[in-house]
Amino acid sequence: MATATLTISLDDIRANWRALAALSAGETAAVVKAGAYGLGAGKVARALAREGARQFFVAIAEEGAALRQELGPGPAIHVFSGHMPGDADMIRDTELTPMINSIDQLIRHVEALPGAPFGIQLDTGMNRLGMEPAEWAAVAEVALEQGPALIMSHLACADEPDHPMNAAQLRAFREMTDGLGVPRSLANTGGVLLGPDYHFELTRPGIGVYGGLPFVDARPVVALELPVIQCRTLAEGETVGYGNTFTAPRETRIATVAAGYADGILRAMGPRTRLFAEDTACPVAGRISMDLIGVDVTDLGHDPAELELLGRHQSVDTLADNAGTIGYEILTSLGPRYRRRYRGQ
Amino acid sequence: MATATLTISLDDIRANWRALAALSAGETAAVVKAGAYGLGAGKVARALAREGARQFFVAIAEEGAALRQELGPGPAIHVFSGHMPGDADMIRDTELTPMINSIDQLIRHVEALPGAPFGIQLDTGMNRLGMEPAEWAAVAEVALEQGPALIMSHLACADEPDHPMNAAQLRAFREMTDGLGVPRSLANTGGVLLGPDYHFELTRPGIGVYGGLPFVDARPVVALELPVIQCRTLAEGETVGYGNTFTAPRETRIATVAAGYADGILRAMGPRTRLFAEDTACPVAGRISMDLIGVDVTDLGHDPAELELLGRHQSVDTLADNAGTIGYEILTSLGPRYRRRYRGQ
Repeated sequence: MATATLTISLDDIRANWRALAALSAGETAAVVKAGAYGLGAGKVARALAREGARQFFVAIAEEGAALRQELGPGPAIHVFSGHMPGDADMIRDTELTPMINSIDQLIRHVEALPGAPFGIQLDTGMNRLGMEPAEWAAVAEVALEQGPALIMSHLACADEPDHPMNAAQLRAFREMTDGLGVPRSLANTGGVLLGPDYHFELTRPGIGVYGGLPFVDARPVVALELPVIQCRTLAEGETVGYGNTFTAPRETRIATVAAGYADGILRAMGPRTRLFAEDTACPVAGRISMDLIGVDVTDLGHDPAELELLGRHQSVDTLADNAGTIGYEILTSLGPRYRRRYRGQ
Repeated sequence: MATATLTISLDDIRANWRALAALSAGETAAVVKAGAYGLGAGKVARALAREGARQFFVAIAEEGAALRQELGPGPAIHVFSGHMPGDADMIRDTELTPMINSIDQLIRHVEALPGAPFGIQLDTGMNRLGMEPAEWAAVAEVALEQGPALIMSHLACADEPDHPMNAAQLRAFREMTDGLGVPRSLANTGGVLLGPDYHFELTRPGIGVYGGLPFVDARPVVALELPVIQCRTLAEGETVGYGNTFTAPRETRIATVAAGYADGILRAMGPRTRLFAEDTACPVAGRISMDLIGVDVTDLGHDPAELELLGRHQSVDTLADNAGTIGYEILTSLGPRYRRRYRGQ
């Protein structure tokens, strides 16, 4: 079998959520958009529901509808993109809670689904989603009469605790929401770590649940083993892969593993990335191609049956550094061809 | 609806394949591994079968088995990774043709499935897959007695027509295969363009079928429209997105679109990428986030309902340049959340 195996530990996902919940002043939700950051929204959300999570966040209504099938009735499913044109039936039928981002969305929601749950998303400076302060001032009274379930905003720089943007957004959020008597949410994972001033009634960690920075105490939750198709010995001076970018500096043993950038192993990570055979690091040799990667296993002394890309020796954040990106993108890029094996439930 | 729409033109895929087939000296196969480079292996392969393709290539046996369900009996499905441990039942039941890469694979195949079809993959210098010249010399006689359907190798530098590696690989391939009387295949898309010396009995284009370089005459086959969730006006000096990386140089209108790196819009392309509203180019403002992108629509003069990332104005290869990668990776990264619409059949 030339299928790589992605192992996802639901036990560790639950432990990370529990740890973030223990740090949170109020209730703790879970962000499971983008298929729970690539790890499987249904399995992850059901595991977190067993752990006690009662509120979930997704990006778009279609994700929410699919998640409702997995979770059944009961847990709240919040939609960050709010109530878009054409979404009314889906929101009603699958009992979603859109986070209303604008006056247009508010009118659309109240007209199509009077009395149906909703939340309010406010912009406190990130300028991405949510109502501006002036917009909110104009409609707050009407909106509050409709009984929003939640008022939220999102932090732009929470991964940098000393960034002045954090305090500025907190101040803006309080100015727009103090005294309204509606549950509030501001903190993503970084916000949880900024401390209780940022927590309000509901925190909503995402990346920390999945083992990524900035939650330095997170347990890693994924392991990725790539099967070796074959090994060969190169004479000094022979080359490997597209564009001949690797030249053997000595007699070299090359293993070809069955995975590549079509599986989300970003091409950009090639030059700095190593794969592991137990404790031995084996560097990528040549370019990462679509379905195959050459690996220099000379120092290993034997031919491995598989090599580990993610796991005990190498984290999502290390691969992200190697590719010049962030751990989030490593996770959401994990591809559809892997055999997915879940540990725990 | 906050779901982006990916439109895939099967008509243009067929036209590209037809154009490459017209350039090929012999028969023309199609490479449909990695879900036809992200565009849907079943739909693409069925369209190409209607166009006359009778031979298809995939990376691993699992892809081949799934493709057999789509194609039905008849067309040959070749597996580049060959016959891996545990694959025998799948190869037999779904009538796959493994490209045997090593003596180990040859023994495994002949012992498990005597008389079942197979091909031979030879290494001519790329050092990725296939038997080395010495290995081939040792087993050629035995292998040929089993009646291989095809002998193939793969070019490492075909995208660079003047690279001396091309002639060296051609020479090595001929030395290993001349006079054997078995159909041969060496040319990927780049190899087709190198001319008839490289074609032998079967060419096997991939990227050119999907509209990418090095086939400069390819028709583009994908368009990607991202819905706008909301628009807002920023005062000069306000910032957008994570890390505040965009600062408004003037009063600025920002549209937030519903797609991000979880949809395969690589973070790395952000700083150089524009989205289009009809003929107006609107630059990305701030970092590409997981599900959302800010776009500066100030010069557009109105608020768009959607913005085009791929299409008439911007190709897969332009996005690849923007991200520091190749068109292949842009295609295979196209994400699972898109609504996929096929043109033609």
